[in-house]
Amino acid sequence: MGVPFDGGSTLGWPGSRYAPGRIRDALRWITQRIEDGAIYSLETDSVHEVGDDLLRDRGDVDVVGHDIGATLDACSTSVAESLRGGRTPIIIGGDDSVLFPVARGVHEALPGRVGVIHFDAHLDLLDHNRFQGRVSQSSGMRRSLELDRINADDCIQVAVRHFNFPSSAEFKRKSGLTHITAREFQALGPVSAVEQILDRVSGADHVFLSFDIDAIDPAFAPGAGAHEPGGLTSGEALEAVRLLAPHCDALAVTEVNPLTDDNTSTTATLAAYLLFHFAVFGSGADRR
Amino acid sequence: MGVPFDGGSTLGWPGSRYAPGRIRDALRWITQRIEDGAIYSLETDSVHEVGDDLLRDRGDVDVVGHDIGATLDACSTSVAESLRGGRTPIIIGGDDSVLFPVARGVHEALPGRVGVIHFDAHLDLLDHNRFQGRVSQSSGMRRSLELDRINADDCIQVAVRHFNFPSSAEFKRKSGLTHITAREFQALGPVSAVEQILDRVSGADHVFLSFDIDAIDPAFAPGAGAHEPGGLTSGEALEAVRLLAPHCDALAVTEVNPLTDDNTSTTATLAAYLLFHFAVFGSGADRR
Amino acid sequence: MGVPFDGGSTLGWPGSRYAPGRIRDALRWITQRIEDGAIYSLETDSVHEVGDDLLRDRGDVDVVGHDIGATLDACSTSVAESLRGGRTPIIIGGDDSVLFPVARGVHEALPGRVGVIHFDAHLDLLDHNRFQGRVSQSSGMRRSLELDRINADDCIQVAVRHFNFPSSAEFKRKSGLTHITAREFQALGPVSAVEQILDRVSGADHVFLSFDIDAIDPAFAPGAGAHEPGGLTSGEALEAVRLLAPHCDALAVTEVNPLTDDNTSTTATLAAYLLFHFAVFGSGADRR
Amino acid sequence: MGVPFDGGSTLGWPGSRYAPGRIRDALRWITQRIEDGAIYSLETDSVHEVGDDLLRDRGDVDVVGHDIGATLDACSTSVAESLRGGRTPIIIGGDDSVLFPVARGVHEALPGRVGVIHFDAHLDLLDHNRFQGRVSQSSGMRRSLELDRINADDCIQVAVRHFNFPSSAEFKRKSGLTHITAREFQALGPVSAVEQILDRVSGADHVFLSFDIDAIDPAFAPGAGAHEPGGLTSGEALEAVRLLAPHCDALAVTEVNPLTDDNTSTTATLAAYLLFHFAVFGSGADRR
Amino acid sequence: MGVPFDGGSTLGWPGSRYAPGRIRDALRWITQRIEDGAIYSLETDSVHEVGDDLLRDRGDVDVVGHDIGATLDACSTSVAESLRGGRTPIIIGGDDSVLFPVARGVHEALPGRVGVIHFDAHLDLLDHNRFQGRVSQSSGMRRSLELDRINADDCIQVAVRHFNFPSSAEFKRKSGLTHITAREFQALGPVSAVEQILDRVSGADHVFLSFDIDAIDPAFAPGAGAHEPGGLTSGEALEAVRLLAPHCDALAVTEVNPLTDDNTSTTATLAAYLLFHFAVFGSGADRR
Amino acid sequence: MGVPFDGGSTLGWPGSRYAPGRIRDALRWITQRIEDGAIYSLETDSVHEVGDDLLRDRGDVDVVGHDIGATLDACSTSVAESLRGGRTPIIIGGDDSVLFPVARGVHEALPGRVGVIHFDAHLDLLDHNRFQGRVSQSSGMRRSLELDRINADDCIQVAVRHFNFPSSAEFKRKSGLTHITAREFQALGPVSAVEQILDRVSGADHVFLSFDIDAIDPAFAPGAGAHEPGGLTSGEALEAVRLLAPHCDALAVTEVNPLTDDNTSTTATLAAYLLFHFAVFGSGADRR
Ligand SMILES: [Mn+2]
Ligand SMILES: [Mn+2]
Ligand SMILES: [Mn+2]
Ligand SMILES: [Mn+2]
Ligand SMILES: [Mn+2]
Ligand SMILES: [Mn+2]
Ligand SMILES: [Mn+2]
Ligand SMILES: [Mn+2]
Ligand SMILES: [Mn+2]
Ligand SMILES: [Mn+2]
Ligand SMILES: [Mn+2]
Ligand SMILES: [Mn+2]
Repeated sequence: MGVPFDGGSTLGWPGSRYAPGRIRDALRWITQRIEDGAIYSLETDSVHEVGDDLLRDRGDVDVVGHDIGATLDACSTSVAESLRGGRTPIIIGGDDSVLFPVARGVHEALPGRVGVIHFDAHLDLLDHNRFQGRVSQSSGMRRSLELDRINADDCIQVAVRHFNFPSSAEFKRKSGLTHITAREFQALGPVSAVEQILDRVSGADHVFLSFDIDAIDPAFAPGAGAHEPGGLTSGEALEAVRLLAPHCDALAVTEVNPLTDDNTSTTATLAAYLLFHFAVFGSGADRR
Repeated sequence: MGVPFDGGSTLGWPGSRYAPGRIRDALRWITQRIEDGAIYSLETDSVHEVGDDLLRDRGDVDVVGHDIGATLDACSTSVAESLRGGRTPIIIGGDDSVLFPVARGVHEALPGRVGVIHFDAHLDLLDHNRFQGRVSQSSGMRRSLELDRINADDCIQVAVRHFNFPSSAEFKRKSGLTHITAREFQALGPVSAVEQILDRVSGADHVFLSFDIDAIDPAFAPGAGAHEPGGLTSGEALEAVRLLAPHCDALAVTEVNPLTDDNTSTTATLAAYLLFHFAVFGSGADRR
Repeated sequence: MGVPFDGGSTLGWPGSRYAPGRIRDALRWITQRIEDGAIYSLETDSVHEVGDDLLRDRGDVDVVGHDIGATLDACSTSVAESLRGGRTPIIIGGDDSVLFPVARGVHEALPGRVGVIHFDAHLDLLDHNRFQGRVSQSSGMRRSLELDRINADDCIQVAVRHFNFPSSAEFKRKSGLTHITAREFQALGPVSAVEQILDRVSGADHVFLSFDIDAIDPAFAPGAGAHEPGGLTSGEALEAVRLLAPHCDALAVTEVNPLTDDNTSTTATLAAYLLFHFAVFGSGADRR
Repeated sequence: MGVPFDGGSTLGWPGSRYAPGRIRDALRWITQRIEDGAIYSLETDSVHEVGDDLLRDRGDVDVVGHDIGATLDACSTSVAESLRGGRTPIIIGGDDSVLFPVARGVHEALPGRVGVIHFDAHLDLLDHNRFQGRVSQSSGMRRSLELDRINADDCIQVAVRHFNFPSSAEFKRKSGLTHITAREFQALGPVSAVEQILDRVSGADHVFLSFDIDAIDPAFAPGAGAHEPGGLTSGEALEAVRLLAPHCDALAVTEVNPLTDDNTSTTATLAAYLLFHFAVFGSGADRR
Repeated sequence: MGVPFDGGSTLGWPGSRYAPGRIRDALRWITQRIEDGAIYSLETDSVHEVGDDLLRDRGDVDVVGHDIGATLDACSTSVAESLRGGRTPIIIGGDDSVLFPVARGVHEALPGRVGVIHFDAHLDLLDHNRFQGRVSQSSGMRRSLELDRINADDCIQVAVRHFNFPSSAEFKRKSGLTHITAREFQALGPVSAVEQILDRVSGADHVFLSFDIDAIDPAFAPGAGAHEPGGLTSGEALEAVRLLAPHCDALAVTEVNPLTDDNTSTTATLAAYLLFHFAVFGSGADRR
Repeated sequence: MGVPFDGGSTLGWPGSRYAPGRIRDALRWITQRIEDGAIYSLETDSVHEVGDDLLRDRGDVDVVGHDIGATLDACSTSVAESLRGGRTPIIIGGDDSVLFPVARGVHEALPGRVGVIHFDAHLDLLDHNRFQGRVSQSSGMRRSLELDRINADDCIQVAVRHFNFPSSAEFKRKSGLTHITAREFQALGPVSAVEQILDRVSGADHVFLSFDIDAIDPAFAPGAGAHEPGGLTSGEALEAVRLLAPHCDALAVTEVNPLTDDNTSTTATLAAYLLFHFAVFGSGADRR
């Protein structure tokens, strides 16, 4: 489902409202390789029976352009409905203010401890300031950690890098939230990094994978809300998502920005591949 | 003064938050031709004594990214202050939600009937809908006309074109608001068109010139919030502003969007020239 | 209907295969202003009852990527079907090899003399050469004039300019085909130019308006198959289409090229407006 | 001949060193329409016998990248040689520091009064300052007017606009140099404007047409050294060059900048058309 | 030799017809470092005597724009001629339909088993479908494997990734064709990967290296016919080509697309370096 | 301090004159995360007390656009002044002709052996040729090595790649200058590579880190003076600068070119991060 809304991107480049449309366009390039309900994965050298209902497009969430509260509420509702219907929701942002309502939707619909694997260049741990308020693209993780059954112990931030607020460092230290920087991820390689991540969230009953596209380097994902060099490669990100997919109950891909993307929609294509990998490898489709 | 805010651009491309910065950069190209406080105008073949206080940059209005109400209030306050200080304020948007608070600031600070010359491809007469609410880039003119001393009879819309809502047609008919389409403007030529415009606002005690950059064709102003072909040329717009300047008490240039501008900032440069022409020809500087 | 095919663009920039998709996207921006089946035209200051079937999207023609013959046949068939169904077909190319099959479809479905109003920077009168063969974007008008009831006397080429083959000059002279150059069109203005055009085709029983987007200057329509400076403005083109629409039985808009368009789809937006004007003003919808 | 040198562009965007290569590429698109040594002009509806030596490429002038003096000397020498060989030289800049050495080459090779028709947004009348020195893209006209037989009375500046230095106004007044602004040119139309221009230079024995591409509006010529909105259209410029060509002994096209051009080389294509029109209509080729 | 033809790119972005021109331009940047017939390689810290005939440009193959059969035949002929003349042909596509005629030319001119090292994101094993027919950019490897002395056992596909048709998986399994995915290549590193590749083709008497530029990630090669994230880096590709060069008899670089390349021709520059490395390190030039 | 000058970029793309402005703009994105004079580094998981004088902007060097000698002299003077004032100067080019005057300024102000760590794709060891003269972006290292106390033994070139002049190879061999290619750097990883670098310069009393942005791959740093594929990633470069910072007395970042950068200033952002890492990790600010 799409959330064509960027009213929470009070910092950086707005424009992620156009992401759902572009990513759906890009998906058509990928799904044309499905033949009789099956697709061949080169990385695993296996054919997956994906059927014709692998990706069921629920359309866009009921966005209210001028009202971030109403929009995020609609988002939580849609996520919870999808989960209650037995589906694994994939949310296409929109800016990263979407992180919180998706976490809240998961939290609402599913029992037990909910973990969050948060790929992002940034911490998104802002509590509040005058310019951005309490709810924005910079506060998603902070708000999520205020939910009852989402504890820092079940969460990890991945691909974060460079500099952030000392107050966020303080919050991290107190709450026990940990991270793997992009450089550490690259030194480990995706396989070991995913092991560490899964180890960290092993106590959670359900896991939400939140993927801010700026986790990936601007060379590979120029169409983002901000540029933070030193990020993951597209190959590393795709491999990580493939390995994480079987362990996750929901995916959000956020901050894809067609207004800053290049003229061949490189970033929308990458986002489409991320979510398609998630769908194929998370679906448990029989291989042959 | 700048209003780096695009929280009212719920339709179309956001990004006008970056306009004040880019337009200030572009102004440096123009002002380098001031020599000993004077500048030579080729169109009028005359030298203008502009001094060194022609453009006094008041910095940016106190924008609150997540709060459109607070932002627009700050905008009105700054406009009113500037006018009370005896200056002719030039406001650099930001999206066209800025139209209303500038009109309100003028209305607050100056007595008598206030006219609005509204250059725009669009009518901006939306009353309210669920998606955009009552205050957005689409409602500026509607809100302005609700102020006591701003009457449709003293207002005119220029360069509007193509199609709009039947309900806006209805409002126009009832209120008596009139327009000159872009094609009509071009058929008349800037000199006659300006005569018609000035005639229309002749009953007003004070006039606010509101210039949404999309009044100009996307060929000349690609960096806008939406593309409406069939607009004015840059030359027509500059000539019109030059001729209108002596009759106006405030200028707003809105919807310049660096995110959709080309890589040589064509639109920011044009906007800078628009406001510089307004300043030089509105200043009444002695010619020699 | 769309013809996402550019296999006939053997010269210049290919890429018009993507035009139908982009132009449909751009149409959404325009049609959002329809309210209760009506829309307000600023140029005519009138409200048009367009209903909810003004534009009925027949989807894409059955394009066979590697087979230009099969593709153009499918195109003729779809055009003829649409006309026989009492509709006024609007065809979105695709490259200008589409000109011929549309003319052929009109010729097939409608009796009597068929005229062609051909807006183009180029003559498209190539008979044959080794590189392009007999059927390409450069031969559409030549092939059309070989049809029984399409005579040069009922045809006119508009906005052509610069240089062309002496052999095409020879063909023009012999066949009696005439033209209005872009500069002549601009000197006349759209109203007089349209009068001349309608006068020229007055003997035809049916008229096909073929609009190669390069009739318009690259400043206004950068996304084309080739750049020919000195073309029409977008405003002139829109006004001409508005005035011609009531007199035409079919429209093709060709050579829009998203691969060479700018990053805000200026050209696709313009093409969408061209066809929307054609639909509204050709529909004979009652005005109020 | 090309002058791939931009060492004189100390203000604005450098990059015109790449213009000769791109303009030659663009010329191939145009010359493919020559058939058996003849070409058909649509504007004049006549066939021109241009032979196969219409444009003889003398290659690039001997540019010395780090030495503007040596480069401009080489330029003058080449121009003079070409003229002495009975040719009409066409010089492709390079930045507009090239104006002066071309004028000097003409002055050297041809007797009598030499007039300069200077299309430019700018005056290029700078005498000297610390940053740009005495020889740069801003001084070409000033230096040219220091040559013995080039008098202001035989020169005119066309398409100049906006603002310039009061000291240049002073120089203009004293020397008697006159101008037609871009707006005046547009009000007159190319035919009348050219009449005024030819009238002005009627006392000269030889005329050099110097065309800084920024005479044309950035909408039509984005690839320039600076953006000055309010310029000529491409159609106006082409018509003017066509009408002026028979009266001129040399042409320079300068300030075309591939680094700021769009990705379809709109400006290089326009420049190629300008010089091709000059060659065809200046050549006196018999028409048939 | 160049093959400026993209009539086989029925899927994805066309435009590779412009690649030969752009890659030749880019080569000039590289070859300026040849001094007295020698060049210094930093990677090997050695000077190579390359003479002045290292790259002999045979011009473009006799492309027939509207006829893919004639074009590919001309391509095979040129390749075979070059090989019979004792040269190592380097072919610059054009789209990847060129793979097959080059393989056929090698097969024609050289005796014994012919191996193909196929760098590509895609398998290009399509047999036939209605849209693309039997000959297109998607069928090159399938058609090549139908030649007598080209056996799957002597072939390997490198940098393939993501998803493909189950029917292609079936064909691969039956024929025994193998692959190294981009991720495997990156895990191995270029040195080990090249060892595996050479091991695979060790039974072949002659080897053709076919390099579809989309083997490289879109971050490094944006100007391609389609975007497949997760590809090789430019550094990995260059190192692989350097190591493979001494073992290969022909090189084709295909699918470079100037229409989708960025405005600094990043991809054309990379392609030029790929073929220059191939030429220098495959030439066996004495080192000093 | 900035050096907005590209008069030494006689080869490749000019435009680095705009780098100081853009990099200062980009720095604002980074420094907004400073809170009460402290900033949190994710890579080191530590908070740094940077105070409010970490980066003191000395403005631009006194550039004389038309006079490279005067400009480079001013640059040396400013560097020396800064060092004598006890600061660690950070110079933002401008083209890489700036390398030499910075080295000279360091040499002037500081006693003992001066080492240069030169990150660059190129050697910049040109002695002299007709086109570029003795002083240009290609000669910086050669000129620096002519200074008394700068010996090749204390210098190393990093990230160089591909091909260069045999005469430069000869100079390197004779002088004993060594290099680490980009591929070697990547095989070693930044940690080991930095160890080798520091080992090489261990005999120097002072070290100048000169960073030509083309050391980084064009995928990560498209806005450069030339494109050399196969370069470092942004992550590798940032890590290297972080590790080298405590050992260096001056930094120059050169060849950042806004005219070839993408429309989101990817390269200026990366350059800003490079120098901010240098400042934070070189400042020896107490960590907490
Ligand atoms: Mn985030
Ligand atoms: Mn983020
Ligand atoms: Mn507006
Ligand atoms: Mn508007
Ligand atoms: Mn055509
Ligand atoms: Mn055409
Ligand atoms: Mn000039
Ligand atoms: Mn100029
Ligand atoms: Mn392929
Ligand atoms: Mn491929
Ligand atoms: Mn360098
Ligand atoms: Mn370099």
